[in-house]
Amino acid sequence: MVERHIPPPLRFLLAARRSELHGLESLAVTCELAVHLSALVHALQKERGYSNLTLCNAPDSQQETLAGLVQDAARVETDVRGFLDGIAAKTPHGSDKARLLNCIAFALFRLDELQGLRRQVRDHAVPADDADARFTQIISSLLAVVFEAADSALDPGVTRILVALLNFMQGKELSGQERAAGVIGFTAGFFTDAQKARMLGLAAHQARSFDIYAQYAQDAALQCWERIQQQGQPVERMRDMAQRTSAEQRVDGTLAELWFDLYTARIDAMREVESLLAQALAQQCERRIAETRQELDDRQLLLARYADHASGRAPSMVFSVQSRIVDTPPADGVGSVLERSVLEMMREQTLRMQRTDDALNTVRGALEERKRIDRAKRLLISQYGLTEQAAHERLQRAAMDGGLSLADVARQVIGQLGGN
Amino acid sequence: MVERHIPPPLRFLLAARRSELHGLESLAVTCELAVHLSALVHALQKERGYSNLTLCNAPDSQQETLAGLVQDAARVETDVRGFLDGIAAKTPHGSDKARLLNCIAFALFRLDELQGLRRQVRDHAVPADDADARFTQIISSLLAVVFEAADSALDPGVTRILVALLNFMQGKELSGQERAAGVIGFTAGFFTDAQKARMLGLAAHQARSFDIYAQYAQDAALQCWERIQQQGQPVERMRDMAQRTSAEQRVDGTLAELWFDLYTARIDAMREVESLLAQALAQQCERRIAETRQELDDRQLLLARYADHASGRAPSMVFSVQSRIVDTPPADGVGSVLERSVLEMMREQTLRMQRTDDALNTVRGALEERKRIDRAKRLLISQYGLTEQAAHERLQRAAMDGGLSLADVARQVIGQLGGN
Repeated sequence: MVERHIPPPLRFLLAARRSELHGLESLAVTCELAVHLSALVHALQKERGYSNLTLCNAPDSQQETLAGLVQDAARVETDVRGFLDGIAAKTPHGSDKARLLNCIAFALFRLDELQGLRRQVRDHAVPADDADARFTQIISSLLAVVFEAADSALDPGVTRILVALLNFMQGKELSGQERAAGVIGFTAGFFTDAQKARMLGLAAHQARSFDIYAQYAQDAALQCWERIQQQGQPVERMRDMAQRTSAEQRVDGTLAELWFDLYTARIDAMREVESLLAQALAQQCERRIAETRQELDDRQLLLARYADHASGRAPSMVFSVQSRIVDTPPADGVGSVLERSVLEMMREQTLRMQRTDDALNTVRGALEERKRIDRAKRLLISQYGLTEQAAHERLQRAAMDGGLSLADVARQVIGQLGGN
Repeated sequence: MVERHIPPPLRFLLAARRSELHGLESLAVTCELAVHLSALVHALQKERGYSNLTLCNAPDSQQETLAGLVQDAARVETDVRGFLDGIAAKTPHGSDKARLLNCIAFALFRLDELQGLRRQVRDHAVPADDADARFTQIISSLLAVVFEAADSALDPGVTRILVALLNFMQGKELSGQERAAGVIGFTAGFFTDAQKARMLGLAAHQARSFDIYAQYAQDAALQCWERIQQQGQPVERMRDMAQRTSAEQRVDGTLAELWFDLYTARIDAMREVESLLAQALAQQCERRIAETRQELDDRQLLLARYADHASGRAPSMVFSVQSRIVDTPPADGVGSVLERSVLEMMREQTLRMQRTDDALNTVRGALEERKRIDRAKRLLISQYGLTEQAAHERLQRAAMDGGLSLADVARQVIGQLGGN
């Protein structure tokens, strides 16, 4: 093998590049996982929506549609599980995957609850809002995996798209929750003050997620989203209508279905954005892997050439760039050309890594907000013995009361309860 | 194999734990590397000191001592290179090692300059301050590897000790530089204003590094350092003396040797602290690996028990903790005990990871300062086309002129030249 002749600095230079290549290959798998999960989340959102409608209204025709959606979701779930089996077989090598694997374990744990939940929905043995909350819990465990994927990605280009995907999925999930909340209110014929506040909150949080999405998205995926937004008036109008209802000013209960259909068309259209993001992810991963592999090949070639050349003389010659003064330059001049390329290679690799690091820091900024909120929740849980749900509600209430964002409240909590 | 019977959530839970174990094992190797490097840095510091003395004074007796030190350093270097060969053979699996490997490549590149430098020192073919700067460059490339090791460590306990070691090594290196600067001044019989400013700056930076060290160090290593500090008066006195010299108020040139010996005794004593930190590192790694392995074994045992037990019934039973209402509890009660332990396991693992993450963030804070300074330098390099040396000097001058710390100036530069 040629590598044994290569001097140590270059061997480590190659090892670093190879390590990057491994990282990109493993990142490509993680991206595929995120794409699979977006499909599963979409199917579960649809199932949740129809489950809600069924539990609220229950005409037989919808039972059938729901059965179809359950089958769809189950099929996607089987895909995801199959893909995960492949991952479980491959990953034990990586030492940096513990958090991602842990998130996956939790998501799978939640997914195992689906069967029981579906039975209860079928038998009308669960209130609509309870079923809704349990579906939402499952979906949020899947979103947590995508979050972890975005947070652990080491390529700025990939991270950027994953951050866009994550925020879009979050926005879409909040849309799904708004759809469900709307069905419950319209079915009743009016919204209580608490329900109205929740609808407003969901719309505001959606806007925030989609804003971040638009900041990170590019090209086709961004344009597709702009088109969808331009078609948002019908939903907007029904949102306004919901805010104007009251126990005295009721609307027709069948509006629930209109709301559901309008909103479902919107959410289905959103799925197109996710597909475009999936394509962009695959392309970016492919491109980066191809680039890195090509560079590695080029370098190996150059170094092999060096090794052939150097076999006749002391390897240290080539690395005496700094101490040139005392070393006689090689007679044929080849050494010095190689020297320059090697030094150039080192400089370039270091600069590239530094640029990558800066870019990653910038792009990850969008994830800090959520991390801060999670951290504040953990502090509330550990210091006041709250449940996660209660901690979340306390943060939300504080945000509403103080007219602050959740992230701002989280910052205050961390400041008070000790953190840095 | 028993794992095939284990349901997916638990398989991923185990995979996460195994990934942590791999991470710890690889971290233990990185720690060993840091310890090896501290030995090499120590040997090179000593060689630099004597090289300086030789180039300034040149009595024959010192030539011999120097030859011995060169041999010592070469021996440690051979150890380090042997250790690195082992790493090069092992690491290609990790995808998160690119930065560390790149740093190692650079350090090895620098180390290749040693031979030429030594020849020039032996032949008195290099000015003392030039030789000094080149030794310093080599040493700082080794320190950069330790920095990277600390920054990439994923265990808060280990990171804490690595941060302590890094800061101690930095402080010790600044001591070495002060020793060299002192030799040059005392040999001349007086210090110029620029030399005095440099001596003061070196003392101040040392104090800062050792303060951070004291913040992160514990037990024996901390007490050892406190003892060394109590014996610092002779060096202090000579520092004062240096500040009072001038072209008119000269001191005897032979004071250089006294300064050198006093300071060398101090630096040699510091080596003891590094040994204690090396012990603490090894112990911490060993303990964490043993703990993690034990937990993994316990879990595998529990899950094997589950697999035996579950072979007779649907695996989904055990994971229906949340949907208990619809599932009949197992008759013998074993299922529910296992259910609880599994859920407990998940909770515990997640909480532990979150605590680890918080602790890591806190402990890594000490590394942010240096990262910020590096980032500011890169901005100066890329936007004004400065060399690294020039960028560093510009930052230093701005800090001195403005009475600010380097980190504060770096913050300003990043703010102005665009960063986040």
